[in-house]
Amino acid sequence: MKKLRRSARLVDMTQHLLARPHKLIPLTFFADQYGAAKSSISEDLSIIKELFESEGVGLLKTVAGAAGGVKYIPRMKAEEARQTIERIGRTLESPGRLLPGGYLYMSDLLGDPESLGEIGKVFASIFADAEADYVMTVETKGIPLAYAAAYYLNIPVIIVRRYSKLTDGSVVSINYVSGSSKRIQTMSLARRSLPENSRVLIIDDFMKAGGTAHGMIDLLEEFKAKVVGVGVLMETADVEERLVDDYVSLLRLVNMDVRDKEIRLELGNYFTGKE
Amino acid sequence: MKKLRRSARLVDMTQHLLARPHKLIPLTFFADQYGAAKSSISEDLSIIKELFESEGVGLLKTVAGAAGGVKYIPRMKAEEARQTIERIGRTLESPGRLLPGGYLYMSDLLGDPESLGEIGKVFASIFADAEADYVMTVETKGIPLAYAAAYYLNIPVIIVRRYSKLTDGSVVSINYVSGSSKRIQTMSLARRSLPENSRVLIIDDFMKAGGTAHGMIDLLEEFKAKVVGVGVLMETADVEERLVDDYVSLLRLVNMDVRDKEIRLELGNYFTGKE
Repeated sequence: MKKLRRSARLVDMTQHLLARPHKLIPLTFFADQYGAAKSSISEDLSIIKELFESEGVGLLKTVAGAAGGVKYIPRMKAEEARQTIERIGRTLESPGRLLPGGYLYMSDLLGDPESLGEIGKVFASIFADAEADYVMTVETKGIPLAYAAAYYLNIPVIIVRRYSKLTDGSVVSINYVSGSSKRIQTMSLARRSLPENSRVLIIDDFMKAGGTAHGMIDLLEEFKAKVVGVGVLMETADVEERLVDDYVSLLRLVNMDVRDKEIRLELGNYFTGKE
Repeated sequence: MKKLRRSARLVDMTQHLLARPHKLIPLTFFADQYGAAKSSISEDLSIIKELFESEGVGLLKTVAGAAGGVKYIPRMKAEEARQTIERIGRTLESPGRLLPGGYLYMSDLLGDPESLGEIGKVFASIFADAEADYVMTVETKGIPLAYAAAYYLNIPVIIVRRYSKLTDGSVVSINYVSGSSKRIQTMSLARRSLPENSRVLIIDDFMKAGGTAHGMIDLLEEFKAKVVGVGVLMETADVEERLVDDYVSLLRLVNMDVRDKEIRLELGNYFTGKE
């Protein structure tokens, strides 16, 4: 037991909560930890709660009763989420990002812990109540986004393999048709990586026709898993028929003109409600 | 400006610092933010500093002078780092992890944000003074570890491609010989992902003979970059000639007996000093 003054206790409780998103911490844990009365701990928590909410850090949810306690739910305010994604969108509109073959260069953004943290927190805010057990993505570019969201949801990540598959033991593989290129491809997931009846949140960087996401949903059926959400950083606007109906996009690629070197993005369906 | 009482100010300063590792924050920022005297801010910081150090959260470094301020350096205590890695090692020794082909199943560990956070903080503690500008890894399994370390160092990640390479624009590729299988392979890095004269920390999950790490070092020469450290989660013990001399390992795989289903790990060279 560490006897701390209130000021030091507040610092310690803050860091303890921030390091454990979505985890229920019994009030008795803090009371025992600091040799303080539960009433003092409650007062401390209300100070932290108020500050977290006013600063947009997140919510502190109090669960009453014997099995009760307090839980930190990372949640970005709606207005801050919109501004964050708008800012990221503007960064991505820089003409130098247009690559041969009509690709959009995003690796720097997906490599930057600060931007990733922001996007991850937006996803975690959107899917905070989905009660996902796992975040799933497919290698390679979706991986950092999946981890960023999983960090704030405090749940594990499972990675569907498209390339490397040697070292995972027994795997379940499916063929799927890439919606845009119409090519048949294979994806696989290690049998042991996902228990049956899990609730899974799919996160990816990019969605065109949705063939990859659709493939992941098919794959999850093999594991008797339930898809509780699909979130993509960016979708493309010019798609005739989307293979996935229910998904959230943060950004939408409206136009990419290779000749005029123009990239035009708008906010995705999460913000605009556009189908 | 938000006028806050000391208690709320301590909570806000704590969350602000924790969210920005290795970043210098001027005292005037806090003073302006809260409309408080610099002397009050200094007192607050000494409370936070003491708690961070006693609880093993990290250090608060104060930089004096006009361009001065305060910096949060995530640093795990040596004893805690050892215990953390020992615990992870014991988890990995479970016989069920032995896969056909003599592979060790680690995907669950590499998918778990909590374990990853711990390993990332150990790497960030080891390389806290290396002044790296980037963390580099090669797809796929090293990616989460690289991000975990980069999060605590607050620097970007760059990913060397072995498989996917379509969407990165102009790339630099090299051939390298995998040290254990002696096969010639290719790895590539997008030209624009790394400015010249950068300082790079290499992080990977596994090292056998070190062919992959050696390839990454060769590749970095093409970018005129300086390698300031190489860290791997696990090295294997039974290697005749290692292609890389200077590296840090957290764990060492001493024996993996497929017939008797026995896996034996010990602490890596960072803890034991063994070559």
